[in-house]
Amino acid sequence: MKIGVVAPASRLEQATAERVTALAEAAFGGRAEIVFHPQCFLSCGHFAGDDAARAEAFLAVANDPAFDGVWFARGGYGSGRIAERVLAGLTAAAGNKIYLGYSDGGFLLAGLYAKGLRVAHGPIPHDLRREGGDAAMRRALSYLIDGAPQSLEPSLDGPAAAFNLTILSHLIGTRLMPDLSGHVLMLEEVSEHLYAIDRALFHVTGSAAVRRVAGIRLGRCSDIPPNDPPFGQTPEEIVRHWCAVSGIAYLGRADIGHDADNKVVPFGVRKGAR
Amino acid sequence: MKIGVVAPASRLEQATAERVTALAEAAFGGRAEIVFHPQCFLSCGHFAGDDAARAEAFLAVANDPAFDGVWFARGGYGSGRIAERVLAGLTAAAGNKIYLGYSDGGFLLAGLYAKGLRVAHGPIPHDLRREGGDAAMRRALSYLIDGAPQSLEPSLDGPAAAFNLTILSHLIGTRLMPDLSGHVLMLEEVSEHLYAIDRALFHVTGSAAVRRVAGIRLGRCSDIPPNDPPFGQTPEEIVRHWCAVSGIAYLGRADIGHDADNKVVPFGVRKGAR
Repeated sequence: MKIGVVAPASRLEQATAERVTALAEAAFGGRAEIVFHPQCFLSCGHFAGDDAARAEAFLAVANDPAFDGVWFARGGYGSGRIAERVLAGLTAAAGNKIYLGYSDGGFLLAGLYAKGLRVAHGPIPHDLRREGGDAAMRRALSYLIDGAPQSLEPSLDGPAAAFNLTILSHLIGTRLMPDLSGHVLMLEEVSEHLYAIDRALFHVTGSAAVRRVAGIRLGRCSDIPPNDPPFGQTPEEIVRHWCAVSGIAYLGRADIGHDADNKVVPFGVRKGAR
Repeated sequence: MKIGVVAPASRLEQATAERVTALAEAAFGGRAEIVFHPQCFLSCGHFAGDDAARAEAFLAVANDPAFDGVWFARGGYGSGRIAERVLAGLTAAAGNKIYLGYSDGGFLLAGLYAKGLRVAHGPIPHDLRREGGDAAMRRALSYLIDGAPQSLEPSLDGPAAAFNLTILSHLIGTRLMPDLSGHVLMLEEVSEHLYAIDRALFHVTGSAAVRRVAGIRLGRCSDIPPNDPPFGQTPEEIVRHWCAVSGIAYLGRADIGHDADNKVVPFGVRKGAR
């Protein structure tokens, strides 16, 4: 198993890459080789290199038949800026691998899934910096290497997809938006005010494309800044409101979020089916 | 001229209403009567009363033939939550008046314009609290009372529409989104990071509906929080980038923004045509 790591958005620290490599060797021995593309460590303003550098690195790994998986180093911001260029440059070899990321990486997961590729929402190398990040790395690697069922979000029992709420809001109406008909849609959020969570749910549930999902599950909404005045509703009350307004089924909580407990959600497949 | 003020989003201070009334009397004497609906001063969490109270007040004024204009008291957050209810409840009398607001009020401006009503983007009573807010009030009232050409955004020379960038992003793909084909689209922003401005422009210019506009003009982007790391581009460089990527013409700056200089942009009409 050979996994290539690229950074389509913000840059990764070299030290984090070294710790991930060491952890993978300790936990999985010679069963997996993890290759951090040097682009991960470039810096250009907000990004891990300019748009061209990030797109080229992504394509170099995606189109290389030697790799079995493409792991997004980090979220942050920038995946959407290169998505069209990446999608236009993929070759047949890109179809034989799994793509794992989340957060800002959702822009690429969406576009890749819309194109028929195998993608999953789950932990990424930068998560090693979190408290408990070791477990997140082992979960991601167990999924990539073995398709381990224990890495998966536990409610999975049919086609699903998972997104950061704000990222999904920014996908509506673009060419990156996949067909989510019949999927259980899992949403998580971080560092957004409650009014902004409400506004994004107004948007997402107001989309005809999203109204075709089988239902919505709410992941964790963390690091919510104080609302002034107090918003008066919890994230779950908010999502229940918008599900009721839009006629979308609310299915309960999902075990995903911007934290070390973030479970893996393969898009479009049943539990255990990888 | 009878102007009704309602608050579809956040609440207005009573003292602000009194100052607006006094200013209108001093500047326009008996030529205009401004009626603040008591709903403006309600409080329910983030909002000027709950969704039902805000929608009912809006409809009471919009559907009352005695009023010539509906002025949105304040932005904040909440207009989108009541937009569907408002649109479903409008009667013929609602078609004989002008609707003036901006910021969060863009949710309603969009839906009302999509329904064929006469709307404009411009100063609102809460703006009186800004430095130079008196001039903003006189500009708005001159437009409402006389259709004064000097109140209008100076570049206007064909069909136009104006939005807060984040609000437009949240309209994409919803039933509130109007047909902006052939319109000059003016965008302004406040209190958003440069990466979020970039992301919203990715979204807005990635929409097939928006790609039919005649071009984009950039209003002021104010109170931008520090970007970490520095984003490396100005708002105008960002909008030029996304216009180039999407094939939309960039037409230069627009004299709108979250400030006292915010000029009036009537949707869909030429300068002077009200």
